[in-house]
Formats: sequence, C-alpha cells, structure tokens
Amino acid sequence: MTERVYLDWNATAPLRPEARAAVVAAMDAVGNPSSVHAEGRAARAIVERARDQVAALLGCRPGEVVFTSGATEAAGMLEMVPEGHDVYVQDTAHDCLMAHVRMGGAAEGGHTLAWGLANGETGVIAEPPGKAEDGYPFGARRADWLLLDVAQAAGRIPFAFSWSGADLAIVSAHKLGGPKGVGALIVRDGLDIAPLQTGGGQEKGRRSGTENVAGIAGFGAAAEAALRDLDAGVWAGVAELRDGLEARIAAAAPETIFVGRGAPRLPNTSCLLTRGWKGETQVMQMDLAGFAVSAGSACSSGKVRTSRVLSAMGYDDAAAGSAIRVSLGPTTRQEEIDGFASAWIEAEARFRARAA
Amino acid sequence: MTERVYLDWNATAPLRPEARAAVVAAMDAVGNPSSVHAEGRAARAIVERARDQVAALLGCRPGEVVFTSGATEAAGMLEMVPEGHDVYVQDTAHDCLMAHVRMGGAAEGGHTLAWGLANGETGVIAEPPGKAEDGYPFGARRADWLLLDVAQAAGRIPFAFSWSGADLAIVSAHKLGGPKGVGALIVRDGLDIAPLQTGGGQEKGRRSGTENVAGIAGFGAAAEAALRDLDAGVWAGVAELRDGLEARIAAAAPETIFVGRGAPRLPNTSCLLTRGWKGETQVMQMDLAGFAVSAGSACSSGKVRTSRVLSAMGYDDAAAGSAIRVSLGPTTRQEEIDGFASAWIEAEARFRARAA
Repeated sequence: MTERVYLDWNATAPLRPEARAAVVAAMDAVGNPSSVHAEGRAARAIVERARDQVAALLGCRPGEVVFTSGATEAAGMLEMVPEGHDVYVQDTAHDCLMAHVRMGGAAEGGHTLAWGLANGETGVIAEPPGKAEDGYPFGARRADWLLLDVAQAAGRIPFAFSWSGADLAIVSAHKLGGPKGVGALIVRDGLDIAPLQTGGGQEKGRRSGTENVAGIAGFGAAAEAALRDLDAGVWAGVAELRDGLEARIAAAAPETIFVGRGAPRLPNTSCLLTRGWKGETQVMQMDLAGFAVSAGSACSSGKVRTSRVLSAMGYDDAAAGSAIRVSLGPTTRQEEIDGFASAWIEAEARFRARAA
Repeated sequence: MTERVYLDWNATAPLRPEARAAVVAAMDAVGNPSSVHAEGRAARAIVERARDQVAALLGCRPGEVVFTSGATEAAGMLEMVPEGHDVYVQDTAHDCLMAHVRMGGAAEGGHTLAWGLANGETGVIAEPPGKAEDGYPFGARRADWLLLDVAQAAGRIPFAFSWSGADLAIVSAHKLGGPKGVGALIVRDGLDIAPLQTGGGQEKGRRSGTENVAGIAGFGAAAEAALRDLDAGVWAGVAELRDGLEARIAAAAPETIFVGRGAPRLPNTSCLLTRGWKGETQVMQMDLAGFAVSAGSACSSGKVRTSRVLSAMGYDDAAAGSAIRVSLGPTTRQEEIDGFASAWIEAEARFRARAA
C-alpha cells in the first residue's frame, strides 16, 4: 500500500509528538484535580502548567483561560449573552458560531459580534471591524462584546488576545497539534459572564466538570510547540510549499480559481475551485489516490454540502459546490505536494476530457 | 518515600491499563471523524467501536449513546427540558444536577426527575421512585422524564438502561477507569430533546464539536473492562475489604458512625463519621501519612465544605463536617487497607486524647 499523504490540517492537525508525550505522562496522574490530597494536587499542577502554556501562545493571562471540550463548547458562551442583546455573526463564520445568531432583540439593547479571524475553508484572514463607533458594519452602535474565533489562526499566525481588542476568544487544541476534544474559552479579565457548565465549580466556577487532564496536558504541550514553531518562522516554509502548489496547478489547469488568493490568507491553505467538477467527487478521487483533502468543513457527520462560506463570498451554488480545500502543516514535505499536484492535475485533465 | 495508597476511587478511579492502551493507540489516528477520507473513516471507526462498548456496559443501544465531555455536560440537558416544566432533583444528588433545579413553573406542566442511583459520598444506592402514578414522592403526577445519574454506579453494580425505566442517563468515564473529561448522555430511542451543543452536527446533531477521539476510545476500553470485572464478580472482593475495614474500625473506635451502612450500598465505599473531628483535618492527616481519601465530593476546586449530602440525610452541621469517604477499587490490596486502618485508628486515638 502506498503511503498516505495528509493534506487536511484545517480539519484536524496531526498530533504533535510533544502533545502525545504530555498526554501519556498525564495519564499516570491518578488524582482528580479538585481533590486536596497529593494525588489531586499533582493533577492540578498538570492543568495549571498547561494553562500557562496556552496563555503564552494566545497572548493572554493564564487566569483568562477557561478549558473546555473544544471551540464548539466555548462558542456556547454566546447563549450567555444577556436577554435583549443581539448576537451578530460574521457570515463566513464556523457553524458553531452561526448556531447562536440572535437578531431583533431590542433596538436599545447592546450586541455581541462573533468573528472568525481566519476562515477554515479558504484560509482568508479578516480583521474584525473592532468596537469603534465608525467603520462598524452592523450599524453605528459599537459591539458591547467581541468574540474572536481563533481556532484556525492560533499557532499559524501571530495573535495576542490582549492586543486584539476582543473580550472573548475561542480556540481548539486539535487544529494546532493538540488532542481532539479539548479547547478553551478566553475571557477578558473582569468580564462578567454566566458559566458554561454548572456543577462542581471547576475553572473558578466558569466551567464545571472534572477536567480532561490528559487532553489539557496535550493542549498545553502543543501550544508550547506551536509557539516555538511560530517564533522560528516555520510557516514561511509552509507558505512556500502552498504557493508552489498553486503555481504548478495554475500553469497546468489555468481555469482553476484559487479562492481568496488575493486576500491575506493563512500560510497553509489553498482552496481550489473548478467549475462543474464537484468537490465531493474530487475528494473521493484524491482519497482513492492516497491523498486526504476536503470539501467544505469537516463537520456535519461527514456530509459534504455546498459551502456556505463560498456562497457568502458571492459564488453561485454550482461554483460553491465545486471546490476543495488543501491544507498543509509544518511537517508537510515537498514530495507530498508534488505527488498531490500530479494526481490532481491528472484528474483535472480527465475531468476536462469527459466534459469536452 | 513510602508508597502512596489511593483510596479515593469515587473522586476518580485510576486509569485502567486497557483504557491507557486504547488512548495511546487512538492518538495514532490522524483524521477528524467527520472527514470522509480514509483517515476520517478510521477515526470514526474508533468512536463507533467505543459506542458499542459503552452501550454494552450500560445495557442500552449504541444509537442511544451521546458522547460528552463528562457527566456534568450531560446533566446540562436538563436545561433543554421545555419551558413550563419543572425539574425535580433528588436532595442528595450531585451538584451538577442540583444546578438545574427548576420549580414552580406551571402547575399544569409536566416535570422531570433527576436522580442519582448511587451516592458518591456515602455509596448509598437508592432506586428512583419510578414513573408510576402512586408512590411518587413529589406529588401524584408522574414524571414525564426520568434522568438517572449512574456515574458512581456504572461498572460497580449491575445496571441496564433499557430495563431501568429511565428516559435519560448520565455517566462519566473516569469513575470506571476511563480518562477524565469524557462521558455520555444516554437518550432513550425516540426521545425528542434539543442538542447539548450546536454547530457541526456531530453525534447525529445531538452534540456538536469534534469528538474527543482518544478519550472516547479510552472510555470504551474501560467500559469493556468494567463489564468483564462486573461479570467476574470482582466487586464482591472489594466489598469484603471494605467490610473488613469497617469491622476493624468499629472494634477499635466504637464511636465511629458508618454512614449508610444499613442501606444498600456500593461495594467500595465507606463513609466514616467521627463527631468533633473535622473531615478536612482527617483528610490532611491521612494525606501526610500517605493515604488519599476525601471529605465530601471532589469538586468545587478543592474546597472542603460541610457535606450537603449528609445534611440532607439528617445529620447536623457539625456531624456533616466530620466525615470522610474511603473508596476502594478492584486493585485495592488487603495490605493497603490494613495500613490505612492502622493509621486512621491511631489518629483517631490521638484525637480522643486531645479531646479528653
């Protein structure tokens, strides 16, 4: 069997070796972090070390990090926005934010803006409109709260919560090389919000439930490694691979549209649109050829839909259903990209031949 | 340094070797379970295998298992009980259920009963009153929904969701030897409830968010091992150790109250109450002597409070603050129990001497 090539880092990044080692080590901690005895304190220390590591990556204070089961759970804090307030959501945001849109509450009430800093399907980076009176796209009123989704951005582009102007941020461990099923809600110091989960009072009462100690340890280790990679400039190399892929495809398949190429983008993402060639079909053909890529986001239980994100960007349904996402990471190698480019260009030529 | 003795299994059980191995193996699965490519399908298969294992332990159908980040998250489904309905909660239930009490909604509305099958602090097993018209303690009306908390019971006493009459159940992996930070909500087939988390539509839309694949794999493996232990009758040996401990303590410290000893109890739990000797002090003294036990439940960020459970059982504040919980498991050894008994009896004698 040929070696598989994984080019779907935006769906989930391979686990970093540092994260794997941290998970394994943390599994030896017997105690419940809420227990007062030595075993409990040892488990607590693992969680608090990870909190420091995550805070360092995100440029926030450790006390602002609330560990959750992922970005989706963290997004649930939008349900805690007081009644009478609207929740506006960027139209290209992830489904876990869209689920909480709340409009027409009270003209007098405030509102919250939920915004994805980098889009998972296209890699396009969009600065939030901020909280200033002017330049605000949803009317003259300022947003009372700004929530930033940095799940795709964290560890790939520089970001500091404390400089972002955001009140809240959500992040996912597995997009940056940590384990799946762990993430965080970042809550600006002093912001008064209702808890995500109620019960035993963990996470200073902000999120009850026994902590995922091993997963949190892996998240912390991944964050530390991601910060080191970011500082070392490894993503410039990833961008070079991605740009090379796009250049080769542009030359061989000139009708390909590279969605978002003109805009600031994540260094690792390429969204290839080929009118008439269904994204779903492309993904299956590439999978059979040994390459893991995706169409749309990796949610909705494997169902491939027309991309809401591309529709929001102005593409018609047929076009929005004809795109695939190729996403790379720091361990992606030139020969993997070469192999994918050859396979995709060949398949595209067959598509053209059939369509002709 | 002397070897530590862990007697706090109700706070969290040591990770079973099978669970550890499953977590380690699952970390090699690169894909997101929602991705359609080979890597995604491999991750999906891990989750579905675990679903079968958990269903086998709990006596429910695999399709009734909704994986969550733990029992606390699963308890959050009580917020989905329709408006106008009351939520009654057993007075000795865990904090994660108490948080959702809702009374005085509508006299005409239905209600939900949330009930802990086995109490974590005392081990007392209490069958729910059921849904029959008569014998129902909260009035003549039947409960529309019955939610059973089996976090402390699952894997320790026989239980089958399909025979329990419950509509919902909540369970935690780490109480039965799985990893911390994973659990499940069991939802009776056909029961129509709103999702716990909204977004990508995972878990058939009941709980969005990328799955904690490694944690779920560990949960499944732990459930399988727990079922095997249960079938093999290993808990009878645990009960023998526990009963021996109580007999020795009763002989040496006859004023000790064994809370719940007259009632059906979990085989592994002993709640020792010594009037005037603070539970918090006992826990610290035992910790220094090398033994991990607890006072109250292991929640609330390590804060030791007067036990709400013991208060609900009729103990006054002073008594309710003077208890410790000793909880054992299948790997607890006779010499560990002997060591604890000696250390505790000695400390109790010193307490008596000071008090005299």
